[in-house]
Amino acid sequence: VSVDAAERPLFVGVDLGGTSIKIGLIDNQGRTITYRQTPTLAEEGPEAGAQRMGEAALAVVAEAGLSPADVGRIGLATPGTMDIPAGMLLEPLNLPGWRDFPIRDRVRHHAADLPVTYANDANAACYGEYWCGTGAKFHSMVMLTLGTGVGGGIIIGDMLINGEHSSGSECGHIIIDSSPQARWCHFGAGHLEAYASATAVVARTKELLEAGRKSTLVDCVAAGEEITPILVGREAERGDPLAMSIVSETARYLGIGIVSLIHVIDPNGVVLGGAMNFGGEATKLGRRFLAEVRETVQERGLAAATRDLQIEYASLGSDAGYVGAAGLARLDYPNQ
Amino acid sequence: VSVDAAERPLFVGVDLGGTSIKIGLIDNQGRTITYRQTPTLAEEGPEAGAQRMGEAALAVVAEAGLSPADVGRIGLATPGTMDIPAGMLLEPLNLPGWRDFPIRDRVRHHAADLPVTYANDANAACYGEYWCGTGAKFHSMVMLTLGTGVGGGIIIGDMLINGEHSSGSECGHIIIDSSPQARWCHFGAGHLEAYASATAVVARTKELLEAGRKSTLVDCVAAGEEITPILVGREAERGDPLAMSIVSETARYLGIGIVSLIHVIDPNGVVLGGAMNFGGEATKLGRRFLAEVRETVQERGLAAATRDLQIEYASLGSDAGYVGAAGLARLDYPNQ
Repeated sequence: VSVDAAERPLFVGVDLGGTSIKIGLIDNQGRTITYRQTPTLAEEGPEAGAQRMGEAALAVVAEAGLSPADVGRIGLATPGTMDIPAGMLLEPLNLPGWRDFPIRDRVRHHAADLPVTYANDANAACYGEYWCGTGAKFHSMVMLTLGTGVGGGIIIGDMLINGEHSSGSECGHIIIDSSPQARWCHFGAGHLEAYASATAVVARTKELLEAGRKSTLVDCVAAGEEITPILVGREAERGDPLAMSIVSETARYLGIGIVSLIHVIDPNGVVLGGAMNFGGEATKLGRRFLAEVRETVQERGLAAATRDLQIEYASLGSDAGYVGAAGLARLDYPNQ
Repeated sequence: VSVDAAERPLFVGVDLGGTSIKIGLIDNQGRTITYRQTPTLAEEGPEAGAQRMGEAALAVVAEAGLSPADVGRIGLATPGTMDIPAGMLLEPLNLPGWRDFPIRDRVRHHAADLPVTYANDANAACYGEYWCGTGAKFHSMVMLTLGTGVGGGIIIGDMLINGEHSSGSECGHIIIDSSPQARWCHFGAGHLEAYASATAVVARTKELLEAGRKSTLVDCVAAGEEITPILVGREAERGDPLAMSIVSETARYLGIGIVSLIHVIDPNGVVLGGAMNFGGEATKLGRRFLAEVRETVQERGLAAATRDLQIEYASLGSDAGYVGAAGLARLDYPNQ
């Protein structure tokens, strides 16, 4: 989108991650005009980070030949824990040393005093898909972001479920197994994240191999390859039964988590984002994974809630976060 | 509340159950002015039922010395399944023969053409507690109604989560156990309802007794008593270890379900309604049951979501449904 074709007002979306920051200048239709990515350099601390984000926000504006006065508002997405109304980063797991930092106001300070809307990164990604990705056709949706962990976002008619303590939509932390044998994630026993994240797939695979299960994965490990969901997916595509069963079980766990979520929210759609997707729509395995998720949900969900429920992969990839952050800023515009 | 002291506008709330219908004339503060209860007589069919409801609505108005012109709107709560926007009862389990019935408009027809707001009964009970019961201090809340089944309601800032197919807030049907050993309710395996409803408590108790577990409950059964949560509670209060463990396990299951719900919604409070409460606040056992639910949630929930979360018993008892239905009618008033 050229600046001339862009629909105003314009917004800047910033997506802060543990290793990199994504920044885009976005128009009123959700189209990216200019974009840049910059390393987080978390070890330099939060004030330096806020300065980098503010400067990068101004840089994408300047790159488009515009000035801060052309920008309606900035949207800032960060990992939690956080206090959204206060604009505070509390204890982000992936940003050690960035505790109790007034990130919203410090980014504003470094970005020519442009007003900033603050959001959780998984919720922002959800809003990105809702605004101009897979979810654009939905009135309400649940998004699960499958990566190192399982992030979640829930939107009902433009309303994000942030919760009363900025801990809403933590869909990775619903409990799908209450038995004493339940698996653990960082936050407790039996959480969906302990079954359907990349971390969980690796852990489950290692346990099966350690238990002596036969698989071509054994040869891969012997050859020095590291166990990752990509490796498991590759061996599954080559027909290894153990790898295939790991993919299927992951789909089943995910389906069970989705059943709980749709019985609570009853949305139009569920969107699966994140890199832990066995190739997504682009591969046969990824399409099979999605089909198995859908099967589990159809089998186990209430008929009314599943009859015309759509479960699909996200379409914006890693752009969803900054685009969604800009979209959330747009909801707060005109500024009060 | 006398009619003179009532704050206008006034509303009529109707709560349709499988065996009885509760009808109240409610003022703008949620206070009941006149009330009556009438048998459902489900076997006479839905049209006769709609007529009874319409006539009862007019009767509580007349009893207060008022006319239909004094009523702003009627709120009608029914069990599901249902299509709320269409005003249709679809397939209510407890009302055989009342399928695919335009209940909202038929009640309106029989109630002097007063406009009717249609709601799910568990959601209406939730709104009743939110408007003028335990939940009056909350901005957002989740309610679980523990009875034959486990009903649910979710409110975020006056917005009820009805879902896209009138199947939102079905909190009894989140999956808390994905193992092959999971218990079943009417709608599937591993649902909270299969663990924490009255039906589930009876089934779990019978299984333990059939497995030969020692308990004073064995003597009760031998003496011809029927196993009910009330009996289990009585024996638990008398110190029977098995009965006590059944109560504790029920609290633990409920706590696990609540953890999933608060990770999705992150509300201010969770309200426990329904008769399956081992005596509720009125008894030591009921208070202990609640304390054990709270312990499980504190132990297993995310710190941010549980730190100032309140979990309490409902306070309106079986009035919550018709009061809440009137409250939902009030949200739709003035009529469009």
